[in-house]
Amino acid sequence: MKNITILGSTGSIGTNALKVIEAKKEKFKVIAMSAYSNLELFKEQVEKFNPTYLCIGSEKNAKILRELYPEKIICFGDEGLKAMGALEEADIVLTAISGAIGIEATVEAIKKEKRIALANKETMVAAGEYINKLLQKYPKAEIIPVDSEHSALFQSMQGNRKEEIKNLIITASGGPFRGKSLKELEEVTIEQALKHPNWSMGKKITIDSSTLVNKGLEVIEAHMLFGIGYENIEVLVHPQSIIHSMVEFVDNSIIAQMGAPDMKLPIQYAFTYPKRENSRVLERLSLKTLTELTFSQVDNKVFKGVELAFQAGKTGKTMPCVFNSANEVAVELFLEGKIKFLEIYEIIERAMKFHKVREMDSLEVIKDVDKETRKWVYSNYARD
Amino acid sequence: MKNITILGSTGSIGTNALKVIEAKKEKFKVIAMSAYSNLELFKEQVEKFNPTYLCIGSEKNAKILRELYPEKIICFGDEGLKAMGALEEADIVLTAISGAIGIEATVEAIKKEKRIALANKETMVAAGEYINKLLQKYPKAEIIPVDSEHSALFQSMQGNRKEEIKNLIITASGGPFRGKSLKELEEVTIEQALKHPNWSMGKKITIDSSTLVNKGLEVIEAHMLFGIGYENIEVLVHPQSIIHSMVEFVDNSIIAQMGAPDMKLPIQYAFTYPKRENSRVLERLSLKTLTELTFSQVDNKVFKGVELAFQAGKTGKTMPCVFNSANEVAVELFLEGKIKFLEIYEIIERAMKFHKVREMDSLEVIKDVDKETRKWVYSNYARD
Repeated sequence: MKNITILGSTGSIGTNALKVIEAKKEKFKVIAMSAYSNLELFKEQVEKFNPTYLCIGSEKNAKILRELYPEKIICFGDEGLKAMGALEEADIVLTAISGAIGIEATVEAIKKEKRIALANKETMVAAGEYINKLLQKYPKAEIIPVDSEHSALFQSMQGNRKEEIKNLIITASGGPFRGKSLKELEEVTIEQALKHPNWSMGKKITIDSSTLVNKGLEVIEAHMLFGIGYENIEVLVHPQSIIHSMVEFVDNSIIAQMGAPDMKLPIQYAFTYPKRENSRVLERLSLKTLTELTFSQVDNKVFKGVELAFQAGKTGKTMPCVFNSANEVAVELFLEGKIKFLEIYEIIERAMKFHKVREMDSLEVIKDVDKETRKWVYSNYARD
Repeated sequence: MKNITILGSTGSIGTNALKVIEAKKEKFKVIAMSAYSNLELFKEQVEKFNPTYLCIGSEKNAKILRELYPEKIICFGDEGLKAMGALEEADIVLTAISGAIGIEATVEAIKKEKRIALANKETMVAAGEYINKLLQKYPKAEIIPVDSEHSALFQSMQGNRKEEIKNLIITASGGPFRGKSLKELEEVTIEQALKHPNWSMGKKITIDSSTLVNKGLEVIEAHMLFGIGYENIEVLVHPQSIIHSMVEFVDNSIIAQMGAPDMKLPIQYAFTYPKRENSRVLERLSLKTLTELTFSQVDNKVFKGVELAFQAGKTGKTMPCVFNSANEVAVELFLEGKIKFLEIYEIIERAMKFHKVREMDSLEVIKDVDKETRKWVYSNYARD
């Protein structure tokens, strides 16, 4: 039996993780669970999975939970999340919360040398250099990626040695605006940007997918997770999202991972790795429906999300953190109707130009850079 | 330095193997080499690679070689090939000869517990059950497949356990007649059948590829090599021949191996496994040219090669041997203009019906069944 902590149980990854766990009750037990504000769904989940530890965003909601479940250990807020990451009883910590707080909870889990099923992009993008230093200090901790692309890369590497990897090829659906011109993107509405062709995900990540900033974040994450140079990471547009990513080896052999667009597979793989297990909840790719896979290059002149990420990644140190924070605020402003779609790129680009790169030697640096970047973007773009 | 014996150096696999070896002289040394009758090319190869042991088809040619190379050890014919398979100095034996004699040489190499880079289909098709029993007796012997499909399956399995495999998906180019009707195939000429869209290979294998008997042989070979049941092996038409085959696992994840259509890669992988090495002679798949991969089901009503193989495989014992032998003679008769294209299927089907299945407990049984089947086909179809 493996004890699992789920940080972010009410989100898209969290709910899928619970489906994976429910289908394999004899192997997995949820011992701790956190949510930000969706109290109704969280209560349902708590009653179904009966974890010992609960964490919720606000003190107010924590009080409600304490009255409902007096026998449980209940905490709240950022400090609560850190405590959840540090639980001794956990075998696996699934970090499925977005934002900088995900980093701190992950740091706690690394210090306790847990397996981290990583679904929090910020951890490796904003804090990658710091996390990698920490992993050297705590060698028994392990990070297994949950993102479908990184899980695909990770699966494709199995049975090969790291020095045999030549290139990582990250596939991209291309988002809802694939093929559009800059001119056409000028007047994109929030509704248009929220329609993703293949994956059903949260709002933030759906917008990131439409700008291809998501792919940019994945490039940086892949670099940090697998230690492959940026010159050896490529993005390939593949609208069907059947091949989730590929690894090219020194002998020019390419290994690709394919499957139905179903997050439950990479989640379960992160739980069962290095083994694979069957499960009734995992979707299967029907070969009968497999007729055509197409590929093309990213139109970098229109979709600047990938190139800006390469730029941030190659600069390194605190720059990927700026890329990430500026984008987070930009997406927020776009969803509030305060900026236009293409201004997301402008904000990231200008924030990166404005930033003075610093060494990334502590979590404080990351927090400071995040705060400064947000402040700069708000003060320059948050029109009323 | 690895010592390599090449059985069949003047064929398509053999010449490619020599290119692989030439590019990595510091790692590989050819110690023994055999050819059937192409004396001119063989002499060139001998002078370039300077192996200690030579084997040639006829005694007459052996005499010529002995005069040319008095310092070398030279043998000939079937007994010569068996001796080549049994050389103690070899680390790897590449069996790139076609026909039943390939089986005997492989048996010798297994008894010496060598690594066999297997490019002789007959070994696992006609004699699979016998070979697998032998491998249990000589557990240090290992067979690494060289066929691009089986190498792809083998590569895709790495890092996973055998019990995690759900399905093997063997891709097929579909051959030059993909999409044609039975009626259209009636009048197919030898020239038309010899035009393969993606691979440049010998005549026999090119015809097999046009009938899809080649895929049938690969299905049986995959079953024998990897111990996967026939109900878990599928053939998928993929005309671009970029994905060389795929493995579906119990968690519905599919791992596929892709690459340029270049036999040098699987040959080198069989030499370097479990490692991968770069080499200037290996062709690279350009992602810029990767635009479209298509897939479809085999038209079993027209191309009966796959279904007949499944039938032979499921019957087991001596039946796959009959499938193979009947096809060999049928292709020979077709290439001699003695039968029509579709009669290849008729011959296989009738030979299988005529055959009384026997246990496969010795090499003699395989030889007898091969002889009987050939005799039956010749006596029924070799019109003058």
